[in-house]
Order: sequence, then C-alpha cells, then structure tokens
Amino acid sequence: MKREKVGIIGAGHVGSHIASALSLYGLCGEIVLIDRDADKARAQAIDLADPAVYFPRPVKIAAGSYQDLADAAVVVMAACDGILEEDRLLELDSTVRVTQEILPRLTSSGFSGIVVSVTNPCDIIAQYLAAGSGLTVIGTGTALDSARLRLRIAEAAGVAPASVEAYCLGEHGDSQVAALSSAVIGGRPARELCSAAALAGAARSTVTAGWDIAGPKGSTEFGIGSAAAALCAAILRDERRVIPCSAMLEGEYGDSGVYASLPRVIGAAGVLRTLTPELDAAEREGFAHSCAVLRANCRRAGLSV
Amino acid sequence: MKREKVGIIGAGHVGSHIASALSLYGLCGEIVLIDRDADKARAQAIDLADPAVYFPRPVKIAAGSYQDLADAAVVVMAACDGILEEDRLLELDSTVRVTQEILPRLTSSGFSGIVVSVTNPCDIIAQYLAAGSGLTVIGTGTALDSARLRLRIAEAAGVAPASVEAYCLGEHGDSQVAALSSAVIGGRPARELCSAAALAGAARSTVTAGWDIAGPKGSTEFGIGSAAAALCAAILRDERRVIPCSAMLEGEYGDSGVYASLPRVIGAAGVLRTLTPELDAAEREGFAHSCAVLRANCRRAGLSV
Amino acid sequence: MKREKVGIIGAGHVGSHIASALSLYGLCGEIVLIDRDADKARAQAIDLADPAVYFPRPVKIAAGSYQDLADAAVVVMAACDGILEEDRLLELDSTVRVTQEILPRLTSSGFSGIVVSVTNPCDIIAQYLAAGSGLTVIGTGTALDSARLRLRIAEAAGVAPASVEAYCLGEHGDSQVAALSSAVIGGRPARELCSAAALAGAARSTVTAGWDIAGPKGSTEFGIGSAAAALCAAILRDERRVIPCSAMLEGEYGDSGVYASLPRVIGAAGVLRTLTPELDAAEREGFAHSCAVLRANCRRAGLSV
Amino acid sequence: MKREKVGIIGAGHVGSHIASALSLYGLCGEIVLIDRDADKARAQAIDLADPAVYFPRPVKIAAGSYQDLADAAVVVMAACDGILEEDRLLELDSTVRVTQEILPRLTSSGFSGIVVSVTNPCDIIAQYLAAGSGLTVIGTGTALDSARLRLRIAEAAGVAPASVEAYCLGEHGDSQVAALSSAVIGGRPARELCSAAALAGAARSTVTAGWDIAGPKGSTEFGIGSAAAALCAAILRDERRVIPCSAMLEGEYGDSGVYASLPRVIGAAGVLRTLTPELDAAEREGFAHSCAVLRANCRRAGLSV
Repeated sequence: MKREKVGIIGAGHVGSHIASALSLYGLCGEIVLIDRDADKARAQAIDLADPAVYFPRPVKIAAGSYQDLADAAVVVMAACDGILEEDRLLELDSTVRVTQEILPRLTSSGFSGIVVSVTNPCDIIAQYLAAGSGLTVIGTGTALDSARLRLRIAEAAGVAPASVEAYCLGEHGDSQVAALSSAVIGGRPARELCSAAALAGAARSTVTAGWDIAGPKGSTEFGIGSAAAALCAAILRDERRVIPCSAMLEGEYGDSGVYASLPRVIGAAGVLRTLTPELDAAEREGFAHSCAVLRANCRRAGLSV
Repeated sequence: MKREKVGIIGAGHVGSHIASALSLYGLCGEIVLIDRDADKARAQAIDLADPAVYFPRPVKIAAGSYQDLADAAVVVMAACDGILEEDRLLELDSTVRVTQEILPRLTSSGFSGIVVSVTNPCDIIAQYLAAGSGLTVIGTGTALDSARLRLRIAEAAGVAPASVEAYCLGEHGDSQVAALSSAVIGGRPARELCSAAALAGAARSTVTAGWDIAGPKGSTEFGIGSAAAALCAAILRDERRVIPCSAMLEGEYGDSGVYASLPRVIGAAGVLRTLTPELDAAEREGFAHSCAVLRANCRRAGLSV
Repeated sequence: MKREKVGIIGAGHVGSHIASALSLYGLCGEIVLIDRDADKARAQAIDLADPAVYFPRPVKIAAGSYQDLADAAVVVMAACDGILEEDRLLELDSTVRVTQEILPRLTSSGFSGIVVSVTNPCDIIAQYLAAGSGLTVIGTGTALDSARLRLRIAEAAGVAPASVEAYCLGEHGDSQVAALSSAVIGGRPARELCSAAALAGAARSTVTAGWDIAGPKGSTEFGIGSAAAALCAAILRDERRVIPCSAMLEGEYGDSGVYASLPRVIGAAGVLRTLTPELDAAEREGFAHSCAVLRANCRRAGLSV
Repeated sequence: MKREKVGIIGAGHVGSHIASALSLYGLCGEIVLIDRDADKARAQAIDLADPAVYFPRPVKIAAGSYQDLADAAVVVMAACDGILEEDRLLELDSTVRVTQEILPRLTSSGFSGIVVSVTNPCDIIAQYLAAGSGLTVIGTGTALDSARLRLRIAEAAGVAPASVEAYCLGEHGDSQVAALSSAVIGGRPARELCSAAALAGAARSTVTAGWDIAGPKGSTEFGIGSAAAALCAAILRDERRVIPCSAMLEGEYGDSGVYASLPRVIGAAGVLRTLTPELDAAEREGFAHSCAVLRANCRRAGLSV
C-alpha cells in the first residue's frame, strides 16, 4: 500500500475540490480520479494537475479505474447521481443505487485501506458502504458543520476560527446538534463570551449554510474540499488529530448501531478513540432525536439497525 | 492601503477559485468578492470561508461592492459574461462590454493598487483596462500556460514540474510560443533530455489544455486559480519572483505597444524588470506573429495600437 | 510602517531561532538582527539567509542597527548577557542592566509598533520595557510552557498536540500554574481522559523542561523560536488568535498591576481581549502565589507595583 | 519501512537543525536522534519537540539508538568529533575515525533505506560510508553551496532567490566550481543580467560563506538544516526534484570513481538521473581539478580510487 495515494470515486464538484485541497495543502503524493464519465474525470485531472509548479510538493494526479485503487491508502467516496435535492435524505434512494453499483467494484479492486465517505446523506451512505464492503469506513459527517460552527462563533466573539473549540454532533443534516454548552475559547465557555442569541444564530446558520450556498451557486464545494482533505490527511499521516466525523455509535450517550458524528481521534488505523463532549439536557435530547432520524433512514435504505 | 487585502471582480468559476487558492495557500488576509449577481457572490463567500479552521492563517472572505476596493492592494479582474466561446478572441466583443461597465466603477472606487487581469482574451482586456483606468494592470497571460508547459516537459523528462524552467511567450491563446530552445532542467537544455517529438507534444498539449478541460467539464478553474494567486502573492509580498505574465511590450524582440507575456520580475510595484529568453529563429518569428494577432485584436476592441 | 518587517534585538540562540522559525514558516518578509556583537549578528544573518531558496516565500534577512527599527511592525527583545542562571529570576539583575542600555536606543529609533519580549525573567523584563518605553509590550510568557503542556498531555492521551486545549498561567517560571481543570480534548475534560498522575506529571515536566534541555545542551532555542514566531505572526497578520502570553493584569482573578500570562486574543493592535479559564480553588491560589512572586521581583527590578 | 521516518546520527548543531527544518516544514512524521552523548540527544529531542503545536503536522521526535533505524526510510549522517578545523579536509582524519565507529552499528541495525551524509569533508565521508556499508549514500555536497550561490546572484540581479537557476559542482569545499556560464534567470543567461564582477563576487562569497559564519558564531547550522531537509524530503516523498548533491561520478565530464556534486534527480530510490550543466573551458578545468582534490583525499582516507 502506498501511504501517500488517495483514490477518489466521483469526479464532480465535491470529488474534484477534495483533490484540489489535497494538492494545494500538499497532503498526499498521488491522486486517482474515477468517474463513470471518464471524459469528465480526465478533464478534472488535467485542470487539477496544471498548477503543479505552484503546489508545495509534487502531486501526481490522473484519471483512472477501480484497479488503480488496489494500493491506495485512502479512497474517498464522492459519487452521487448529480441531482441536488432539497433535503439530504431525499437524495437517499438515488444515491443508494449509485452506491450499490460502486460497492462490488470497490471490494473487488483489492483496496484494503480506509474509506472516507462524503456522499450525502453522509451517515447513511457511510454505514451502507461499511456494511456492504467490510472495509473501515469513516463519514465526513459534521467535519464541515463543525468548521462552520467554529467560524460563526469566532465571528461573534471576534477571534480566529481556529481558536474556537466546538462540535456539531449527530447527523450531517438538519437534525444535527451544536454542542454549544461545551464550546470553549481560550479555556473559557463560549457562552460567557457570546450572547445566547449569537450562539443560537451561529448554530442555525451552520445548519442552513449548505442551502445558502447551493441555492445561488448550484453546488457546495470549497468547504467540503478542505474538510474532507483534513480527514484524509489525519489517516494518511497517522496524525491522531481530533476531527468530528461519522462512524458507528458504540454506546455513546446510550446510543449504538447507527453511524453518527462525534469528535474522534483519527489515525492510520481509522478511528482510534471517540470523545463525548459534555452535553446539557436539551443537547442530549437533540442527539437522541438525531440518532432516531438516522435510524429511520438507515431502515429506508434497507439497512437492518 | 492594506497590503493583505485582495478584491476580486467576478465571482464565477475563475474568481472563486483564485480566492480558494489564495486562502488554501495562505497568501493574503482579506478577500472581497464583487459580482453583479450579489447572491452568487454571497454564496461563494460563504462556501469559500467555511473551511477557515483548516487554512494556514485566518482569511476574512466576504461579498462586497466597489467601494470596498479603496484600500485593497490588488484587484483581480475575473468578470466575464459567462459564455465560453470556442476561441478566446471570439469572447472579445461581449467581454469588452462587460469591461466597459466595470471600468468607471473601478476607477471611482478609490482603488490605487495593482490590477491582475484574468478575463479572456487576457492580453486585450488587460491592455483595455490599463488604457481606460490609468492603473497598473498585469495580465495573467501565459502564467498558466507556462505552468502547463513545465508540467508536460517534466512528465516527459521524469522530473518534478518545479525543476523545469520553461516559458510560453506572447498571446495567452493559440498563437503563443513555447520557448523550447531555452528550456532547461538542472542547467541542461531540455532538448538534450527529451526527444524533439516529446517537446513538441508538450507545447501542443499546452495550447489545447484549456479546451481539453472546458469541453467535458464546462469550465477551467483549478489551474488558473493557483496561477493567478501566485501572481497576486508576488505583488502582495514584494517577492521579486520571475513569473511569465502580460504587460506592455517596450521593444522586447523589436516589438512594442501591445500587451504580451514574457518572464517578468514581479514585486509590490508591479513589473520590476522584463526578461527575454534566448529564442531561435522560428520562435522569434512565432513571437512576432503572436504580437500581430494581438495587435489586430486590440484594434477590434477599439484600442489604438 | 512595513507590516512584514520584524526587528530582533539580540542575535544569540534565542533571537536567531526566532528568525529561523519566522523564515521557515514564511511568516514575514524582512528581518533585521541587532546585536552589540555586530560580527555575530552578521554571521547569524548569513547563516539564516543562506537557505532562502527553500523558504516558502522570500525573506530578506540582514544585520542592522536600531535606526532600522523605525519602520518595523514588530520588535523582538531577545537580548541577554549570555549567562544562564539556575533560576530565571537570578538572571534578573544582569538582564535589567542590559535592558537599561537598550531602552533609550529603542525609544529613539522611531519604532512605533509592538514589542514582543522574550528575555528572561520574561514577565519582569516585559513590564520593565513597557514602563520605560511607553510602547505596547507583550511578553512571550507561557506561550512556550503552554505548548509544552499540550504536548505532554497529548502524549498521555494518545492524541495530536494541537488537539489539546490547555494553558499555563502566571509567571514564565517555576511558580506558573497549569490550568488542568479546564484542559479539554475534543470537548471532553482532559482529566476524564488521562489519570490525575499523568496530568500532574505533564505539568511538572512542563516546569522542568527548560532545565532538562539547558542542562545537557547549554541553551534552549527551538521551542522558544516557534512560540515567539507564532506570537509575532498573530500581530503581523492581525490573526486574532488566542495565545497565552504576558501583559499587564487588569483585575483578572482579582489581580492587577503586574505582567503575567493568560490566554489573550492577539491582533495587529496587540492584546485585543484577555480570557480567564475557569480555575479550581488550588489553581486560583497558585495563580495568586505566582502573581505575588512576580510582584516581589518587579520591586527587585526597581518597578513600582 | 516507514516512509515518514528519519533517523539522524549526531545530535549536535547540524543534526538538530536538520531535525528542526524537517519539523517546521512538515516534511516527515517521525525523527529519531542518535548521539554517543545520550543526554544531549535527549535534550535536543525535548527542545525540538516542544513547539509541536505550531508544526504544520504532528511529528514524533525522540532520542533513540541504532536499533530504531531498522524501519527508517532515511538516515542522516551528521556526526563529527566536534572540532571545527580551518579546512574541511583537515577534519578528515578525526571524522574517518568517527565514521568507522558508526559503520558497523549502522549496517547491523537492519536499516535498508537511503543515507543522506552531511558530515564534512562531505564527499569523502559519503563515499566512505557507501563503500563500507553497501547502502545507497547521497552526500548533501553542494546543495547548500548552490543555495548560497543562487541567493547571492539573486541579490545582484534584484530577483527572488528561487528564480535563479545555478549550481555549484564538484567538491563541497574550496575547490568547488560555480557553473556561472549556465546560470539562468527567467530563461536569460545570468551573465547578461549581472556584471562579471558581481557574478565572480557571488561565487567567491559562496565559497567563503561557511567561514564567514563559523568564525563569529562557532558553527553553521541554519543553512545546512534546510538544505539537508530538502534532500531528505525529495527521497521521502519521491519528488524527482533536481537537487545538486554528491554521488559517485560515472563518466560525467570524463571523470569517475569519486563522489562529487552535480545536479541530480532525487526520488525514493535515490539518484534517478544525473545532469551535466553546460560548462565553459575554465569551468571544465575547475571541475577536473576539484575531482583531483577529492581523489587525493579519498586516498588519504584509505579509499581505493
């Protein structure tokens, strides 16, 4: 296995922008793009590779096929059927079909690394891929939502985004829970530095951000590009960094059996440890509700949960 | 003037990907996006800013208006009318109209920095902006083409792209000249390390790359994003880096009066020095032809050359 | 004022390694080294500048004199008399003399930016410089200690150092307080993820680190290099990042009138806001004790507190 | 073998600064420092690791022993006996003794990667290590000298150092040859952009730089740190970058049988290709002389050449 090689299934907006973030940040040495539209994959690979002299390190970027995944350390699942629905769960049925097509190709490719699954509805598809492939699958989940929440709290508090510690939990979708009660800035609870209204507004704006973007521009791409690239890097480099992302619940807050996002320590082996921020009563209730939503949708996707 | 502030006019594919490259590389501290479709500018700004926690440094990204350009150090011209024509020069008439709308708003904004012009046909629009604004205007020109040429020669020679020194000269378009006779790798002429056929193929593939990308995917964005960002950085940071880009010829190879690309030393004051790679007879002829093409199109755009 | 220019007074181990960190991280564009031993300053400047082709951006590095500070945005105070004492406070008398020599030269240089003071005893010298110059002075304080604490907790918890949020407060010295009760990892209190013994060991090892290093190698340099460079960058780039550092207490935890470290929001104007992590009773008592130590030593240095 | 692991033999100035450059640039994931003075190695490891929260990626840094080299991808030879002589070749005898002690420990460690040898006299010790170990050994050679030359030409020409393409060839020592006739800036010969006197001065200053630094400060460390780290990175990441460095001549310019520096394409397998810049008659003669000097000193070291 080449520790530095990433395969990306789906060369649309999301897949190509993950490749771009990996390249501009200098996080890997080789990227293979796979798409049922081979011409599009090739065009993306040319566009992505063209600025190579400006990258912080050489990155080989090319269109390829499933057999190129055999020696990849990470495969990103970013394929969808291209139709953006009003609710991420409405995309479920069509995306499950796409995933069913991909599963046998992925499992027969010889790939033995870790899958980072981005395709929406993120938690369900990640769980579906894990169940169907036997591979270790991590969903990007609320990695992007948490980045959005931190940015919005940072703006309210007048600090740099990276100086805010805050997490969105549960579903990558409308039922997610912003764990505001445990948000901290410089060792101080965020709720003592920002008004309750500002924090609530930050949480609301986090949930609607995807639609605020996709409405006028037709896609979301830059945010997920960086967030997914950071998750891939934590695996590729065995960083042991804490990133909120989606994996199977194993009793956290009394729930289990569905994929949902919590802060997790990510390394070469995948999820090394899961952390459970302290929640207040409303947040715990919100998390339970989010898990219920996810469970219902897993069933809809044909998963026994 | 804030040395760290960049304004971008045109929040489409090209403008947004320049903003993304500036952010992911950490090259500036503030970006303002301006577009006649204010909703699109706002959506792009949200999408671009969302991964702020992953940027190497904090970057403030927002949609704005022309008055926000007053204290910017660099303004990027990336507006177009959205129609991709088969020849960059066919885009001329509609783009001149767009530029005519923008010119008075730019000049009355109080902006006194340097304009980096990306809109195609790049050389003509850059010259048009310079003539109409009295500002220092640099066209990205062959910054991207030269990066493409270096990548393609690097692949032929089996070396890293950044280890190839090679330039495309003249028009950012079909008449450009790949200065293959002065291309070097490790102090050695490239033509002694690669076959003539390989070098010719690299030059051809450089010219067609834009269409190879735009055909299947409908736009080119990643390549120009990094190339334009590097040009902005050289100005913002007074880097004095050599970058091939478009500015008024002043007698180089016996030509003058039109914007065309040559390697130029770029710093806070703009073009500090222009370099003229040694050319063989065919390359000199090609450069003269490219200038003639540019001259004809300047006239078509109503510029007196 | 050049936003990108940093002056460094004292070109010994500490000063030169701050210059190195600024250059390798690409955090500024120009560095001037000042030392009473002009030959040493020149030798350091040559050694530091030599790898310029490998820096992420061009950095101009040169030896200079106080008049070169007039247009600097940040001046780093890193001068000392070269004798490493067993207790940072024992260095006080000789360092106060060095500081007295430097003060008139600094104030008459025309410098009007922000001073980052590193020289030990850090809090006292920073306060002394502030009182004597009328300039805004920030001491690096526990920026390095906090980095050490985060690393040691990270090793105990098996996570990346940057994923630990923890601060050392008070004196940059033996009386400092590790605010373990508010340390968090992924939204979870560190004390639930690490044993009490592990956390206490991390805090102890943080305090002794300086001596563990200086004993065998005769100096400490790499740690302070990165920590001070990060503080400079937060000012140069107006990052608004939270960094623990030393400035005048203004009633925090009931104390005031002495320089001491707390997490602070740092931007172009210096300290924008001070944060007060929640402390348990023992930590509050420790902080009061640390301030008493600092107050006694200020008096010893001739400061009225 | 862990592609991301680097072992460093010799934890003095040079070894520790290579570790620092690897960490601050984010070029590897794990560094082991080995020194016969185990306390010094441990002190360096603590100092180097302390700023981990500021590194662009997590890096594990620790003191260790030869058995820790078994799974390293690169081992850096930076040991010396600590006495800086007036001529790099005067250091030969004592350094050969040090190398003889290290050789059996290195070969019995199980290490099977590539050795980057820095210890002076660089070419001789690299050749000695290669002969004695059977491992692939690359000397840093003129990687640093060439960086110095590019910086000095850049200053003369008023451009960024990275925009100058120039190489020092032959010995890492006084007999080295600055290949000025093939130096280029922006596709243009450097000798047309700088006066002959300026170029000659740049070459002279390159040769004396080591002494200009070591005289007043007692060591050289920052320059070699970045240069050696770049060479390690080219191997670790299979970058195929052109770096001037020392390896066995195989007929280049008619010479063979000794280690000497030429621009070389460096990747995971070591030297992938050697490039021979075009030289004028005086430069060719100078290169032959440099090889003669190296050959004489190899014999002095007991190598049959």
